[in-house]
Amino acid sequence: MLIVMNPHVNEREVEVVCRRIREAGLTPHPIPGTTRVAIGVTGNTAPVDPEPFRELPGVVDVIRVTRPYKLTSREMRPDDTIIEVGGVRIGAERPVVIAGPCSVESYEQTVETALRVRSLGAHLLRGGAFKPRSSPYSFQGLGVRGLEILAEARAVTGLPLVTEAVGTEVFDRVEQTADVVQIGARSMQNFPLLKRAGASRRPVLLKRMMSATLEEFLLAAEYIMAEGNHNVILCERGIRTFGEHSRYTLDINIIPELKRVSHLPVFVDPSHAAGRRQNVIPLARAALAAGADGLLVEVHPAPDQALSDGMQSLTLDAFEELMSDLPRWTPSARPAEVHVP
Amino acid sequence: MLIVMNPHVNEREVEVVCRRIREAGLTPHPIPGTTRVAIGVTGNTAPVDPEPFRELPGVVDVIRVTRPYKLTSREMRPDDTIIEVGGVRIGAERPVVIAGPCSVESYEQTVETALRVRSLGAHLLRGGAFKPRSSPYSFQGLGVRGLEILAEARAVTGLPLVTEAVGTEVFDRVEQTADVVQIGARSMQNFPLLKRAGASRRPVLLKRMMSATLEEFLLAAEYIMAEGNHNVILCERGIRTFGEHSRYTLDINIIPELKRVSHLPVFVDPSHAAGRRQNVIPLARAALAAGADGLLVEVHPAPDQALSDGMQSLTLDAFEELMSDLPRWTPSARPAEVHVP
Amino acid sequence: MLIVMNPHVNEREVEVVCRRIREAGLTPHPIPGTTRVAIGVTGNTAPVDPEPFRELPGVVDVIRVTRPYKLTSREMRPDDTIIEVGGVRIGAERPVVIAGPCSVESYEQTVETALRVRSLGAHLLRGGAFKPRSSPYSFQGLGVRGLEILAEARAVTGLPLVTEAVGTEVFDRVEQTADVVQIGARSMQNFPLLKRAGASRRPVLLKRMMSATLEEFLLAAEYIMAEGNHNVILCERGIRTFGEHSRYTLDINIIPELKRVSHLPVFVDPSHAAGRRQNVIPLARAALAAGADGLLVEVHPAPDQALSDGMQSLTLDAFEELMSDLPRWTPSARPAEVHVP
Amino acid sequence: MLIVMNPHVNEREVEVVCRRIREAGLTPHPIPGTTRVAIGVTGNTAPVDPEPFRELPGVVDVIRVTRPYKLTSREMRPDDTIIEVGGVRIGAERPVVIAGPCSVESYEQTVETALRVRSLGAHLLRGGAFKPRSSPYSFQGLGVRGLEILAEARAVTGLPLVTEAVGTEVFDRVEQTADVVQIGARSMQNFPLLKRAGASRRPVLLKRMMSATLEEFLLAAEYIMAEGNHNVILCERGIRTFGEHSRYTLDINIIPELKRVSHLPVFVDPSHAAGRRQNVIPLARAALAAGADGLLVEVHPAPDQALSDGMQSLTLDAFEELMSDLPRWTPSARPAEVHVP
Repeated sequence: MLIVMNPHVNEREVEVVCRRIREAGLTPHPIPGTTRVAIGVTGNTAPVDPEPFRELPGVVDVIRVTRPYKLTSREMRPDDTIIEVGGVRIGAERPVVIAGPCSVESYEQTVETALRVRSLGAHLLRGGAFKPRSSPYSFQGLGVRGLEILAEARAVTGLPLVTEAVGTEVFDRVEQTADVVQIGARSMQNFPLLKRAGASRRPVLLKRMMSATLEEFLLAAEYIMAEGNHNVILCERGIRTFGEHSRYTLDINIIPELKRVSHLPVFVDPSHAAGRRQNVIPLARAALAAGADGLLVEVHPAPDQALSDGMQSLTLDAFEELMSDLPRWTPSARPAEVHVP
Repeated sequence: MLIVMNPHVNEREVEVVCRRIREAGLTPHPIPGTTRVAIGVTGNTAPVDPEPFRELPGVVDVIRVTRPYKLTSREMRPDDTIIEVGGVRIGAERPVVIAGPCSVESYEQTVETALRVRSLGAHLLRGGAFKPRSSPYSFQGLGVRGLEILAEARAVTGLPLVTEAVGTEVFDRVEQTADVVQIGARSMQNFPLLKRAGASRRPVLLKRMMSATLEEFLLAAEYIMAEGNHNVILCERGIRTFGEHSRYTLDINIIPELKRVSHLPVFVDPSHAAGRRQNVIPLARAALAAGADGLLVEVHPAPDQALSDGMQSLTLDAFEELMSDLPRWTPSARPAEVHVP
Repeated sequence: MLIVMNPHVNEREVEVVCRRIREAGLTPHPIPGTTRVAIGVTGNTAPVDPEPFRELPGVVDVIRVTRPYKLTSREMRPDDTIIEVGGVRIGAERPVVIAGPCSVESYEQTVETALRVRSLGAHLLRGGAFKPRSSPYSFQGLGVRGLEILAEARAVTGLPLVTEAVGTEVFDRVEQTADVVQIGARSMQNFPLLKRAGASRRPVLLKRMMSATLEEFLLAAEYIMAEGNHNVILCERGIRTFGEHSRYTLDINIIPELKRVSHLPVFVDPSHAAGRRQNVIPLARAALAAGADGLLVEVHPAPDQALSDGMQSLTLDAFEELMSDLPRWTPSARPAEVHVP
Repeated sequence: MLIVMNPHVNEREVEVVCRRIREAGLTPHPIPGTTRVAIGVTGNTAPVDPEPFRELPGVVDVIRVTRPYKLTSREMRPDDTIIEVGGVRIGAERPVVIAGPCSVESYEQTVETALRVRSLGAHLLRGGAFKPRSSPYSFQGLGVRGLEILAEARAVTGLPLVTEAVGTEVFDRVEQTADVVQIGARSMQNFPLLKRAGASRRPVLLKRMMSATLEEFLLAAEYIMAEGNHNVILCERGIRTFGEHSRYTLDINIIPELKRVSHLPVFVDPSHAAGRRQNVIPLARAALAAGADGLLVEVHPAPDQALSDGMQSLTLDAFEELMSDLPRWTPSARPAEVHVP
């Protein structure tokens, strides 16, 4: 249920409504917005009678939400969520690029990559310290040492950090270092991890599981928001289909759908979706053209020597090409004049 | 097998090579190109010994092609295939838009739509006269009367026509009227139909079956080319996946892959891939950004009254929005300056 | 709409109802059943008013059918459809096995296989004369000569024949020879072919397209039945999924669902579903245990020399193993006593 | 790499080989078998030179294993793994049935179900205390109180318990109570959880993620085995496909494939795969007929009042029907005589 408040409502009126919600055994979630203020209500297992709430001062409307996701829905919050990280506004007009190596391999590789992607326009640095790997015999990341290297790269470049927490066991340590905590596709339904992320004050980048429906994806974000952390970035990274010509199939359709039904920023990881370097740029441009708010891209100075996912990492030259005309691919941008060869 | 000829080769030398190929019980396919001339060889069930061909005058190289598709492959023909239809160059620099109603319903609806889409910049007119429908109880199209209406719309607007032949039974009649004959997704492996299309002098727009691999798709085009018709346009229209938020999943990954392994033009049908109007434009832009050569779009002056696929047809206003900045989304275009809000 | 008649109805009463249906611009389909007689009504594009029909003599009930398939539905015909072919009852208690080579390759291969599978208990002979092949360069079958060989094999063995018609072009010729005409998975939505099959007096074995939903599958059967041919055998042969360990994924779930919603016999082709010989027997047993009425199995005396699909053809020894305890796997059978090792 | 030892090898010889493996920086995994003893070698990132090992006393052969999974492979251990739990032999001749409610809801519901399924022949009791749920607003299980109720049900019935650990956080507590610890489909690639399970002395029932390939499934089991716990039961529970007629698609093909490439017991959960009660029995029989070693079935005395998954839970009557002729569906069983109606 969603209680929509008068635009000129005062804090006390909001508090009165919240108290009445709590008295009914439910949980209020005040949602500030630029156009209207609303209070989400969760915790009910059966429909709640909206009538008693309609009469409270400041209440304009009470809406029954029938979808299973609530806090993530645009009905709850009509305005786009914008998340600020180290001066970068995620989910706002300009596309945001998170770039860096799949795995942190060494100080030199990480700092070199960070300096180069910053000079080419990247806004945040990505890099895996703890790596979820299908095989127990594959390189699993440098762990805590990887986090230390990332922190050093941030000190050198000023780029905020995005790195993955593979489980609750390492969340505290990752949270100390990361500016944005990533939850990987394989962990999208690791519910204890989602709850832990919900208790964090760091923004969370949540990747879609390769077989998750739109509803399951938003419900995973809902787990995080229901614990109080409203700064969630959704990230599509390709789904599993019968196709053999790519590692995964980028679900380009989900981008406008997510933007329509949810207020959260939507990112795309074209690297995993492509699985091969030469298709990363076309997918990245397509993602932005379809309305994505940003990209999560793997870049490696020497992809052929990467300890993981080298095949799909962009070279620095290719990353430069991607960044050279990035704003153009955003639908809201207005190119002055277009020359077709 | 592919026999690559000297750039300065003369016709007689090509004929000598072709004769030798025929003498070996095989079929030669001379492929003119701007950078080099080549002769494709098909019809072998086992590997062919390349040595006897290497010594013939004008032969530069003999390449063993291991992929099951040959004539469609870029190895066979490094240059992009460009198909001219009524003055429109398909597969060249500028994106080409084929627009019109799903079904031809009446003279008025068709001519009105044709006039409007032409004024908004469409290059060809689409419209179904014979409709393949999942249910025997659904509207199956106006048939021959539909073709007559399309011809009248062409007479009025000058737009070349694209319409579907649902089987060999109606191919002759469709071919008389259509400028480009469409083969629908459900017919992609109707092999007698593919062979009939291969014997036609009309270009063929071949849609990908919703569960076809890249290889099966190119082999279907290969059936057409092996009969002598080299003017094939490939059209991706969405694949079947577990996703519930869209009718099909547009396989955006296949666009750069098809452009890489084949020389044929690649189109995208964002209408079927989206299944709902509001997502057609994002998918259309994404398709171009990923490298598609053109679009096949359903447009209806009053989509809510359409006899088929109204849900996914663009209104004329939405089509105008799509066309307003079309060239911008082509990677080879160069916008002069970009303003992000 | 379905009009249910009194059990003691006479022919004249049925004719009166049918005439009234025709007068309303609709098509009546009298459906004889052992427990009750019903008349299916098709041809309406909008709901039909049932009231005028309720009052006619002999009418017990008028049921509005909301599913898009009608004639194929169990609501239309509660009793199982049983199809007799050459003395074999398909869809009755005992599982029926259709066995033989993927392709007819020669007189010797075909007759030898036919004699052997008959001696091991097969009920019908299968064999492809016209073969739909993904590549234009693959063996496409012996064509008319293949049909002649099949007819000779029937003369020798007495086994009724099942063979595929790949298009309307060859339907007449196939129909002359075949006892059951097969429509392949790739042709499941070849609507002209379905209509032609509907006009045939031969039973039709309709294979499910690898990406067809249950509803699309039944609607394809509906095309055949709507033309008057009620003898349709449904055949599941595996769907396309992300799985890499088998050629297709046998959709075992669809067997009980089809039996529940439709009265048509349901067969399974474990050969295509498995794609490799060693898994054919487990899938065949699973299919029967799940309720399938019969099997369509590829058997070859020397699979390694087969011109098509050798990998998935059973040897004669393996076929003997399959047949040795076949009835046991039928749920309605009652084994006297079971010894577990 | 796999080192195969002489059948008459003694313990000291095995120890010598293990020491040499460790000296090479690798990890030895001695695998006792009834027909031959072998030592698996893991930990290498590049190929290992087999020659130095061939000369050691007791070594018969050194096999290079190229598949990414090793300890789970049948090459490593040709004999079937048999796991004993409370007197029940899992993976042996007779099919084993694990039955019980989806969720533990109360003492009465659990003990009543446990008593009834035991009397009908179930071998182990299942029941969820910690429930992974897609929505944060769904019933999440009784938690520790659920484990206590399960322990009481075991005390009353003697049935060993199978229950899920949704994360490492609760593993210790679950392990105290459970006889077999279940890892759910959504946790199949929760690598910290797999490692924790590998350090446990309890057998682990590992469910396949709905989009996991065979290789990913075995690699998840490999994580558990690599930590020293060799008692892993694989459980197929349906994959995600385009199909709409069932909740998931039971991948019947994977059963014989898993039995062929791995020595681990293979179970099937027909309840989740079916998603609706009436199809559970057909899928259960099919699973056994295809070679499954056992079943994991949801049973509820009043499914319509279940707090989770009631739709797919068998009633006690239906469970009785399933159990009435269970051994018959095992391929190795030999029914004395079969009567077909």
